[in-house]
Amino acid sequence: MNIVMIGAGNVATHLTQALHQAGEHILQVYSRTEQSAAALAQAIGCPYTCCTEELDPRGDLYIVSVKDDALPHLLPEVAQANPEALFVHTAGSVPMNIWETHVRRYGVIYPMQTFSKQRDIDFREVSFFIEASAQADEVQLMQLARRLSPKVYRATSEQRKYLHIAAVFACNFANHMYAISSRLLTEHGLPFDAMLPLIDETARKVHRLPPSEAQTGPAQRNDVSIMASHLQMLEDTPQLQELYKKISKNIHQYNTELP
Amino acid sequence: MNIVMIGAGNVATHLTQALHQAGEHILQVYSRTEQSAAALAQAIGCPYTCCTEELDPRGDLYIVSVKDDALPHLLPEVAQANPEALFVHTAGSVPMNIWETHVRRYGVIYPMQTFSKQRDIDFREVSFFIEASAQADEVQLMQLARRLSPKVYRATSEQRKYLHIAAVFACNFANHMYAISSRLLTEHGLPFDAMLPLIDETARKVHRLPPSEAQTGPAQRNDVSIMASHLQMLEDTPQLQELYKKISKNIHQYNTELP
Repeated sequence: MNIVMIGAGNVATHLTQALHQAGEHILQVYSRTEQSAAALAQAIGCPYTCCTEELDPRGDLYIVSVKDDALPHLLPEVAQANPEALFVHTAGSVPMNIWETHVRRYGVIYPMQTFSKQRDIDFREVSFFIEASAQADEVQLMQLARRLSPKVYRATSEQRKYLHIAAVFACNFANHMYAISSRLLTEHGLPFDAMLPLIDETARKVHRLPPSEAQTGPAQRNDVSIMASHLQMLEDTPQLQELYKKISKNIHQYNTELP
Repeated sequence: MNIVMIGAGNVATHLTQALHQAGEHILQVYSRTEQSAAALAQAIGCPYTCCTEELDPRGDLYIVSVKDDALPHLLPEVAQANPEALFVHTAGSVPMNIWETHVRRYGVIYPMQTFSKQRDIDFREVSFFIEASAQADEVQLMQLARRLSPKVYRATSEQRKYLHIAAVFACNFANHMYAISSRLLTEHGLPFDAMLPLIDETARKVHRLPPSEAQTGPAQRNDVSIMASHLQMLEDTPQLQELYKKISKNIHQYNTELP
């Protein structure tokens, strides 16, 4: 398949490199920002453009991987490139039918992972979620994703929205819990490194136990006196104190709701 | 060292077995609950008692590993066993000086990990925090802990309180984020397993980057429209909606505070 990549941000960069390494032919890279387009194109040795009018019309698959709010005005322009091709975006929270009025064949490849420029991604460890307007195209997209990872699933646009919000909790919000932890430690002369074994075990544990069964800590065992002393320790940071209260309350509620 | 273990809960059980496997001599196990005492004693082949009056007086080290609120009434009884011995507890949030009026030599061994009965613990992956009333005893406790793990640190009672609350955020609250994620997925016919690569990468990432730099997601990039759509999706669960708001707000605040 000849692939044209629209975008050169975190997701686009990691995905393009992974596709290139898997032997896919990247025909061209587009980014509004010339510097980003050039950098990514150079990394994989392909041409680039900063102009949607110059998109290569020979693409079989056009992958649009840009910020969600850039999609609405970019899609009609990208759609001009080749009316017969397959068009996909990579966004968790954008429904597939955003393509509907612009192209005939369309779909979504959503790689659910946390991408940072500073860090390489092993795509074999990325879950992919696929959706397409036609079954043949869905099969093709599943096959493409399977070249990168064994973890390929079908998901409707509605399911993908919930995948995204679930990922916000499991990844973005979990990481913020690490950030709060790190700050509390640093403020008291303690190394964040000492917390890593606990962070690792917490993540490993839910491979074997459902998170609700893996839950431990003062809120889980309703240890009111420890929670009161923790709330007192957080008195200088009312926002953290509030978070501690709300999360503990929610843990307690989940706990009492269990069968 | 001859060790007497007071307690047979999660932490006591895992710790006793690890000490036994490391070649330490467990002289006796105590638990108020005969069944727990017997089970643990049998697992390592030592005597047990359910009566503090029957604690073996030949112990060099008495480790009290029970619920925090059981400590105050248990310590004076345990202290009778051998006035010359070293006494420690294993609690994160209890100051060392809770021993002060009862025994001459005392300290703390705090293994910072999430212990569940259903799951074995690799103690080489546990951070230990040590404190003692005398330097010689501190050295002895450090050496003992180092037989179980390379990750042994000194921490004052004040620091240990902050370790504990930091662990609540990094472990207990992070796990609750997994639990919320799991529930959102299950409710929409999606497998929690698909989230595991993301959970693993989120944990791995903070081995290399400070959590504040590893942060990604809608709140981090202040993507107001995605956050609004997520809040709308959570309208039926106001408690979750509130959590989503507060955590996002805190991420945004940490982000803007960065140098």
